[in-house]
Amino acid sequence: MAPNAPIENWIFREIAFPKDHYSHKETVFTIGNGYFSSRGGFEEGYPGENATTFVHGVFNDVPIFKTELVNFPKWYSLRILFEDEEFNLGAGKILDYYRDLNMANGLLTRRVTWQSPQGRQATIQFERFMDMANIHHAALRFCIYDICFEGRLSIQAAIPGVVSNERYRHWRHINQGSCGENSSFLELKTMNTGIRAGISQAVHVSVDNGYQYAYWDAQWMPTQTYLMEAKPGDRIEGSKHSVVYTSRDVDQPVSHAVKEATSLLKIGFDQTLRENQKVWTSLWEDSNVTIEGDDLADRALRYNLFQVLVAAPRQDETVSIGAKTLSGYGYRGHVFWDTEIFILPFLIYTQPKIAKNLLMYRYNTLPGARIKAKEQGFEGAMFAWESAATGEEVTPKWVTGPEGDLVRVWCGDIEQHITADVVYAIKQYWQATGDDAFIKNYGAEIVFSAAQFYASRLEWQPDTGSYHIRDVIGPDEYHEHVNDNAFTNLMAMWVLEFSKQIYHWLITESPKTYTALLKKLNLTKQALGSWPEMASKIALHVRDDGIIEQFAGYFDLERIDQETLEPRDQSLQSIYGIEGVQQYQFIKQPDVVMALYLLRGWFDRQQIIENLAFFTPRTDLSYGSSLGPSIQATMLARYGDVEEAKALFLSTLLTDLENNRGNTPDGIHAASAGAVWQVTVFGFSGLKLSEGEPDISPRLPQGWKRVRFNIYWKNRKIPFDINQKYAL
Amino acid sequence: MAPNAPIENWIFREIAFPKDHYSHKETVFTIGNGYFSSRGGFEEGYPGENATTFVHGVFNDVPIFKTELVNFPKWYSLRILFEDEEFNLGAGKILDYYRDLNMANGLLTRRVTWQSPQGRQATIQFERFMDMANIHHAALRFCIYDICFEGRLSIQAAIPGVVSNERYRHWRHINQGSCGENSSFLELKTMNTGIRAGISQAVHVSVDNGYQYAYWDAQWMPTQTYLMEAKPGDRIEGSKHSVVYTSRDVDQPVSHAVKEATSLLKIGFDQTLRENQKVWTSLWEDSNVTIEGDDLADRALRYNLFQVLVAAPRQDETVSIGAKTLSGYGYRGHVFWDTEIFILPFLIYTQPKIAKNLLMYRYNTLPGARIKAKEQGFEGAMFAWESAATGEEVTPKWVTGPEGDLVRVWCGDIEQHITADVVYAIKQYWQATGDDAFIKNYGAEIVFSAAQFYASRLEWQPDTGSYHIRDVIGPDEYHEHVNDNAFTNLMAMWVLEFSKQIYHWLITESPKTYTALLKKLNLTKQALGSWPEMASKIALHVRDDGIIEQFAGYFDLERIDQETLEPRDQSLQSIYGIEGVQQYQFIKQPDVVMALYLLRGWFDRQQIIENLAFFTPRTDLSYGSSLGPSIQATMLARYGDVEEAKALFLSTLLTDLENNRGNTPDGIHAASAGAVWQVTVFGFSGLKLSEGEPDISPRLPQGWKRVRFNIYWKNRKIPFDINQKYAL
Repeated sequence: MAPNAPIENWIFREIAFPKDHYSHKETVFTIGNGYFSSRGGFEEGYPGENATTFVHGVFNDVPIFKTELVNFPKWYSLRILFEDEEFNLGAGKILDYYRDLNMANGLLTRRVTWQSPQGRQATIQFERFMDMANIHHAALRFCIYDICFEGRLSIQAAIPGVVSNERYRHWRHINQGSCGENSSFLELKTMNTGIRAGISQAVHVSVDNGYQYAYWDAQWMPTQTYLMEAKPGDRIEGSKHSVVYTSRDVDQPVSHAVKEATSLLKIGFDQTLRENQKVWTSLWEDSNVTIEGDDLADRALRYNLFQVLVAAPRQDETVSIGAKTLSGYGYRGHVFWDTEIFILPFLIYTQPKIAKNLLMYRYNTLPGARIKAKEQGFEGAMFAWESAATGEEVTPKWVTGPEGDLVRVWCGDIEQHITADVVYAIKQYWQATGDDAFIKNYGAEIVFSAAQFYASRLEWQPDTGSYHIRDVIGPDEYHEHVNDNAFTNLMAMWVLEFSKQIYHWLITESPKTYTALLKKLNLTKQALGSWPEMASKIALHVRDDGIIEQFAGYFDLERIDQETLEPRDQSLQSIYGIEGVQQYQFIKQPDVVMALYLLRGWFDRQQIIENLAFFTPRTDLSYGSSLGPSIQATMLARYGDVEEAKALFLSTLLTDLENNRGNTPDGIHAASAGAVWQVTVFGFSGLKLSEGEPDISPRLPQGWKRVRFNIYWKNRKIPFDINQKYAL
Repeated sequence: MAPNAPIENWIFREIAFPKDHYSHKETVFTIGNGYFSSRGGFEEGYPGENATTFVHGVFNDVPIFKTELVNFPKWYSLRILFEDEEFNLGAGKILDYYRDLNMANGLLTRRVTWQSPQGRQATIQFERFMDMANIHHAALRFCIYDICFEGRLSIQAAIPGVVSNERYRHWRHINQGSCGENSSFLELKTMNTGIRAGISQAVHVSVDNGYQYAYWDAQWMPTQTYLMEAKPGDRIEGSKHSVVYTSRDVDQPVSHAVKEATSLLKIGFDQTLRENQKVWTSLWEDSNVTIEGDDLADRALRYNLFQVLVAAPRQDETVSIGAKTLSGYGYRGHVFWDTEIFILPFLIYTQPKIAKNLLMYRYNTLPGARIKAKEQGFEGAMFAWESAATGEEVTPKWVTGPEGDLVRVWCGDIEQHITADVVYAIKQYWQATGDDAFIKNYGAEIVFSAAQFYASRLEWQPDTGSYHIRDVIGPDEYHEHVNDNAFTNLMAMWVLEFSKQIYHWLITESPKTYTALLKKLNLTKQALGSWPEMASKIALHVRDDGIIEQFAGYFDLERIDQETLEPRDQSLQSIYGIEGVQQYQFIKQPDVVMALYLLRGWFDRQQIIENLAFFTPRTDLSYGSSLGPSIQATMLARYGDVEEAKALFLSTLLTDLENNRGNTPDGIHAASAGAVWQVTVFGFSGLKLSEGEPDISPRLPQGWKRVRFNIYWKNRKIPFDINQKYAL
């Protein structure tokens, strides 16, 4: 049993068939193991389903979005026929139904008692998991019992190569076949990127009176079929072990897949589930957070962290977590600053090895970032606003708007704080882990390359005696093409200062690396030496009362009280239009407040409190960015009303579970799922890490009796156990 | 045997495997029957093939292009395996090969002697046709002989539901199954338009020592399989009858398809081929043209007419012929003026019933044309520049340019001569057939609606005392946003004048229809009466020497001698860019000359000759529009150098056979395939139809000994037989 919480807080249960919420629940019941991940579709399919299985790093070209994660064959597909009637919840009667997601071991169980349109009845149970112990493996177990009819029953276990991303196909058929009596395989290849995939399955079926077996080698659809005569009282059990390898993993994905499926079938479902559970237990021993006194928050927080762990690549340094994890088509698997700023802290402090993989992804995509900088006429490395396999910019230039019109998306061109965000994550990781080898071999290169970029990006203006960064988008994307966005400028400043620290450290610890790096980056000591002074001259407009101007001219914009617009069910951008909303002080998400959060050591408490009070009523927390509420809640928990923070925290926890923003069918809100950890740990618990030993200064909301979590600090695991005396 | 030409001029033969021209030849070997049509892919498939089967009128939504013809399962697919080696010309050795397209009966034959990579050898012959006698039926016959190995041989006859338009899927799976021992079916439904399709097959295999049969009900891929032990000397024969119905045809497409396939299998391949041939013979008796003394022209002209007949809907008044027939993805099955101006004359004069169907398509899409007029703020009906199922405008607004940039396509907004072109075809049809009932019931409504549109479109300018049509694109699409395009203005003028003729005829012949129509169209007698005068005041700028200015300001543009740009292998638009080419007098295709061709009664011979001489050197005949050369050749044959006309005619005949423009893989150039008939009949033969009995005044090029063709005139078939005394 996993640690620290009542069993019911480890299980998310659905008690009725989600007829009108199928695609929302498909996202909610996503499982995975950091190598691949599958949405929670039904094994037998459902009309209009949007089943996907994504494997990290397997991208292929697509119009508009440039590149996207490729949908794999639905490994857990299973057709069951009672005579000619196909088991499918789109027809017949559902007499009993539940679905459980066990977060302690990633097991997804569904049990249905179903009566066919012609009155044939049985109970069918499915259990499936994606194996944390063998990341290429996923297993399905099924059981058909309480059979209330007599007649032919057939089971078809296929590897359904008929698969596309929504309606767009990515695969070429290469080969398929069967291997012995119980297994089959399919070999596919992505059309543009040429990644070969080997998908295999090994199937076992057990029934008292035996069955007739046939393998159908129909093209694209290798299908193992089991035909039997069923009668009341019969019990049919079976399992299917699926294995996926790609040419990103091994040279011969098919032979690996075939070999492993057969041997996993011998090991069996129970034993592989146990091995899988061991890994989950160990993950939770480090990453679990318990909130006693608030079961809803406890369970929902766990669900959010579960979804991050499901998508976190534990064994691959060339991939990262996309804005919708691996759970839907939203943002096509592209990686944003969501990863470094919102998700990474949770992993840095609880799963530092995974955190390193994600930072290595940025190191490995430096070539793409250098191409982007060069194309825009800058030096160093400029990370892509949306990044995929190579690190080149893959933000779509145009998307189709609600009226079918084309909307120009500027983020790929001018949302330029992302490079600093990556550096910020490196700093956090280094501080927490003390992983000097990482900084020496990889981190320093990223930091210097980022500093090179910002130094070349700064525009000197003699009459102001300052450096400016003109024509950008800050975190608040309601305002495009602004000058001197405070967040961007502060983060650029911070990068240039931090690079000085790296410089001092590197020249002391490894002068050879320092020299080699200067040469590799075509960087002079003079240039490097000029950065701190440049940093000190970057423009920042602060009003006499300490309020930081979000960008040049922000204070001159019109202000409307948000409450006068209530009730509303759309964002302020939808109300005023893309052009219109730019005329107001409304912001999509914390921007100055985000800077104050990340750089909280730079500002005194009073200034933070006043800025928070100033910007909060101007922020579209309900329908703006889903990135907003978690940071806002964290800041409120420290510098504002804790009960307000709690309310915001709770609604953030339910973003996907309750489809609060209406777009959960597109996938899990990864940033929000990761950032709720920060609300708990940095917000309510007040973890302080700036110097010396980690410490806390909790401000718990009413009703919370006890909060427990661990963090890793310089390779030591430090447990925190906060009791209710801290409740305000 | 079909009439009037040596047998070898009825067959197009390919003597070697087209390794590097597969997709070009896929288009060339397209067959069809006016209901559906299939590209000439191989039965067994080929890597990278672009096999399509399109059924007239079955469209579904698609991004950018709005709607497109939907690719159907490849009815002629057949897999053959020698042990585990799959017969496929992408591997092994081709020892002998030919492919014949018999234009007399639409039979496509291919014979290959093939040796597998492991040395198993056999000769395989395929014959297939799409049945003109039963338009829902298509049949495949195969024979495997000269077998040089001993071992397992298996044949898989599937209905491969794994089908998409290039990479975009349109189908939802509805149902599938087998019916008895020899047949199976698949039921699909288009995702947006909800058209249900029933596709069935009935298969017969004959082999001395028998076979083992299995039906694989794998989802999306119902597959009938035949397993046998082959040995040298064996001969395996078989046939597959496929039937396609959709919910556009009948309520229960599947049951129709299943029933017919089984009964067609009983009738057999030979007998159905004979029935099919009867229809072809009768089509050719009316439509064939023979050119004695020039076998290349004779055969190639027949090939072009064959491709029109293959795509011409003989039994459907709600569809038309797209710019690429039913033979490829180019223009997505959309219908342009190509049909009315380039293709229709051939059908009006040789297949008037089909011509009527095509005009009825325009009648049936009037609602869409009315929507377009209304949306643009005009009255009456404005036909879509690109038209599909409903007649609403489906020209893409943006397409992706060669550099990945977006190019705005203006034709859907401002290429406005299409409405006049439709009326012109109606006039021609009426004149040729005397089909008064059509005019009374349908034609008059189109003509009046078109006149309403042009009358509302004209812009009165007091200072010039003229009506103008500003901001259009004429046939010459190198110049966008021009004012007073001569072609558009002349055709608008012509429509307004022709409507007077219709008015007089209608009020005389059927005053009741006249009154009802006025009411239906919300049209007053006053408005109608004002059209002729409006027509007389439409601006047209003619230079003193008789040269008509193509649009206002054309004469002021720069002129460059095309020869100074030779050699070139791209259009002048590619050389100068979309903006750049507008600065020159270069034109993409005949524009003034096109007006002179259509309205030849309005101009005297001398003026035509001079305009032709003026515009010819300014026209990009080699790489401009593929619509250009045929009209140019027709005019040269009448008013210029006949040998020059012949050279242009020959290269036009070979547009697709030799892939002259490099884009034949996208489909047959339908306009060019239809217009070569006009070059022969109106050009070289000089058919005159303006008044009284049809007459000819031939100008035959050197070497042509005899030209024969028929036309229908007022329900009489009139044969023409021109001998070499007319050769110049």
